Amino acid sequence: MSDYHVLDEATLRQWLASRVSLADRLGGEPGDWRVRDVADGNLNSVFLIDGPAGSLCVKQSLPYVRVAKDDWPLDVERAAFEAAYIRRVAPYVGKLAPALYEFDPVLRTLAMEKLAPHVILRGAFVAGRHFPRVAADIAEYVAQTSVNTSDLAAPFEARAGDLTIFPRNVALQRITIDLVFIDPYKVSARNRILPALEPWAARLREDDEIKRAVAALRLAYLTKAQSLLHGDLHSGSVMATPDDTRVIDGEFAGVGPTGFDVGNFLAHLVIAWFAAPFGPGDAAAFRARLEGDVVAFWRGFRHRFLELALKAEGDGLPTSHFAANDPHRARLLEAYVDDVLRDAVGFLGVELVRRIVGFAQVQDFLSLGDAQTAPKARALSLARALLKEPDAFRDPETLVAALPAHDHAGLDPRATGA
Amino acid sequence: MSDYHVLDEATLRQWLASRVSLADRLGGEPGDWRVRDVADGNLNSVFLIDGPAGSLCVKQSLPYVRVAKDDWPLDVERAAFEAAYIRRVAPYVGKLAPALYEFDPVLRTLAMEKLAPHVILRGAFVAGRHFPRVAADIAEYVAQTSVNTSDLAAPFEARAGDLTIFPRNVALQRITIDLVFIDPYKVSARNRILPALEPWAARLREDDEIKRAVAALRLAYLTKAQSLLHGDLHSGSVMATPDDTRVIDGEFAGVGPTGFDVGNFLAHLVIAWFAAPFGPGDAAAFRARLEGDVVAFWRGFRHRFLELALKAEGDGLPTSHFAANDPHRARLLEAYVDDVLRDAVGFLGVELVRRIVGFAQVQDFLSLGDAQTAPKARALSLARALLKEPDAFRDPETLVAALPAHDHAGLDPRATGA
Repeated sequence: MSDYHVLDEATLRQWLASRVSLADRLGGEPGDWRVRDVADGNLNSVFLIDGPAGSLCVKQSLPYVRVAKDDWPLDVERAAFEAAYIRRVAPYVGKLAPALYEFDPVLRTLAMEKLAPHVILRGAFVAGRHFPRVAADIAEYVAQTSVNTSDLAAPFEARAGDLTIFPRNVALQRITIDLVFIDPYKVSARNRILPALEPWAARLREDDEIKRAVAALRLAYLTKAQSLLHGDLHSGSVMATPDDTRVIDGEFAGVGPTGFDVGNFLAHLVIAWFAAPFGPGDAAAFRARLEGDVVAFWRGFRHRFLELALKAEGDGLPTSHFAANDPHRARLLEAYVDDVLRDAVGFLGVELVRRIVGFAQVQDFLSLGDAQTAPKARALSLARALLKEPDAFRDPETLVAALPAHDHAGLDPRATGA
Repeated sequence: MSDYHVLDEATLRQWLASRVSLADRLGGEPGDWRVRDVADGNLNSVFLIDGPAGSLCVKQSLPYVRVAKDDWPLDVERAAFEAAYIRRVAPYVGKLAPALYEFDPVLRTLAMEKLAPHVILRGAFVAGRHFPRVAADIAEYVAQTSVNTSDLAAPFEARAGDLTIFPRNVALQRITIDLVFIDPYKVSARNRILPALEPWAARLREDDEIKRAVAALRLAYLTKAQSLLHGDLHSGSVMATPDDTRVIDGEFAGVGPTGFDVGNFLAHLVIAWFAAPFGPGDAAAFRARLEGDVVAFWRGFRHRFLELALKAEGDGLPTSHFAANDPHRARLLEAYVDDVLRDAVGFLGVELVRRIVGFAQVQDFLSLGDAQTAPKARALSLARALLKEPDAFRDPETLVAALPAHDHAGLDPRATGA
């Protein structure tokens, strides 16, 4: 940490000026550069810089969780893992992620492509806005990253490289373990539970089937080392325009179960769906588009995963064990991806829970103010069904068809749902 | 590799003399030390050194597989992983492993406790000799190492440490992937198949159910990161006296499915069982003792695993999710260990296969000369049943009871068995 310091506008200009390739990209003189502080997350500084010739986005890890400044110190090393993640997946995801121009390992600072006029997908959802390409693009992103960093495509030695790097990202993975898999299922001072939802929270802590399901998902997160995960793939980690989709914020990267990224993204489509009737605009039309996204994302992921894996050669399913055109390899790959999707249903469930009764909540609900209780209870009702009966959700159409029933869920968990 | 050189007796004496703690342990002067070269494996030099005050075993990684000297170069770094493995499990296994006195990372050389009058368990088996403590001791060893390096007992951060170290042991884990999980199921120049067993080998390459089972086991080996494995826990990695048991040769160490070590050890009890009628001594009595070992090892492992895991606290099944005396945590642990044992049945099967039609074969059979065909065919018949119907072997009594039926298997795989 010796030479690490938090950049402000003045020291940021100095840093940019000292990096020839970045200064060249901006053009002109440092005094010509317009710098804006646009951070809206909890963990990092983010600056957008415009110069006469070009623009940049600069992101720096802060040594604390912003919302709880002195209370929650946080290792700045996560920037190195974000940089490593971006570089590892870049060959596969292409324009679905911003380009990384430079990483400064001392300042824990990344200089990346500035995305404009992209907006954060969650903000769009809160405004009732929909982007038609997002679901297919994120499906492609997750299929590419998960096949190409798995034993289906990557030689064992490349996978070993990932395993020796990304498990060191302990600070952020510890946050996931605690906030996703542990705190919401016990009494914890970190949980943020609306008083009216206390009966639901108590039910989640006490239901044996849920406890069993969460235990299995937690063990899967800890031990199922299938592929390199983004690790935080919610609608706040996606920036979009009607024509372009980018995945950002890979600082939670780790090796784990592929279904974690899949379930995470599904969860935030579902959250937007439950929030829709309380938000702006035509809720029925917005819901229909989100339902289409659930189907397009799930089916698109499964289709592209199989397409990529069939052509790939790794140690997991070596083609030398199969004659050409032998259908068994394709069937084994289908079983693999269907297991991923089964996991995804469970991770969808725990993500809903932790965003409603856990520490880190989402604007989809928070922006509704007093109206957030009802959609949160409904989403918890779905989460319970997903955790207790994952096999009832083997395809996206079934998931979509099941959503409206949970609109009838209320504040008493005994009176509603499964 | 710059200062690495292969030790001979003269340079070994110099090395020992240069290490005060080792020289002190031996006592006297270097000229007083008796040095014997006792290597019998393929990968390492092993010397036993006796001095006036004490003794040592010195093991050095060689830069090639001995049997194929120039044809198969092999990274010497495995010695560092063996040293790391010994140190990582020492707090849990105590006297069940030899003490590591010193590790020289330049010469890739370990100085360890000399075991006397211990003999290699496989050699004892070949001689028809049985040690009554071994099964329970190895059960204790595997239970201790697998619980204490798993998410049931180790904090996530300690597990991350293992993951950043042991996946770098790629040279030896690549051997396991190729020789255990890939080569035996395809035509490979490395396979060593008795001509009379070609029909069996062909069957193993062509049976779709076996192909499916092996694919699942290979993916489990590659992705199921449950605990730190010894990775090569066969009867050649165990030294014993009637009163004492030690596990040696942890150079294949890696993070993987706990059932791999369990199934491996079971496989070599079963191999000895099939070889028994063709070896020296009272075959029926020896088989009865080996059957007792199968039951004692399996039941002992399961019992101690549960006992240790129940008292442990890790991120996998945090006690904060369960009330005191809540039976659900115990039931989840039972499901965990029974899943490990299910995996073990499969790994038992692939270990039998690879020791019979693969590259690295075992003295239990090889020592039988012309008589090895029959017991090998019988063991392959069992292996097929284990791979095709793992759920038929849910307890060790069933496994033991199934053994005699395979004594009727012959050279035609269509005529026999399941």
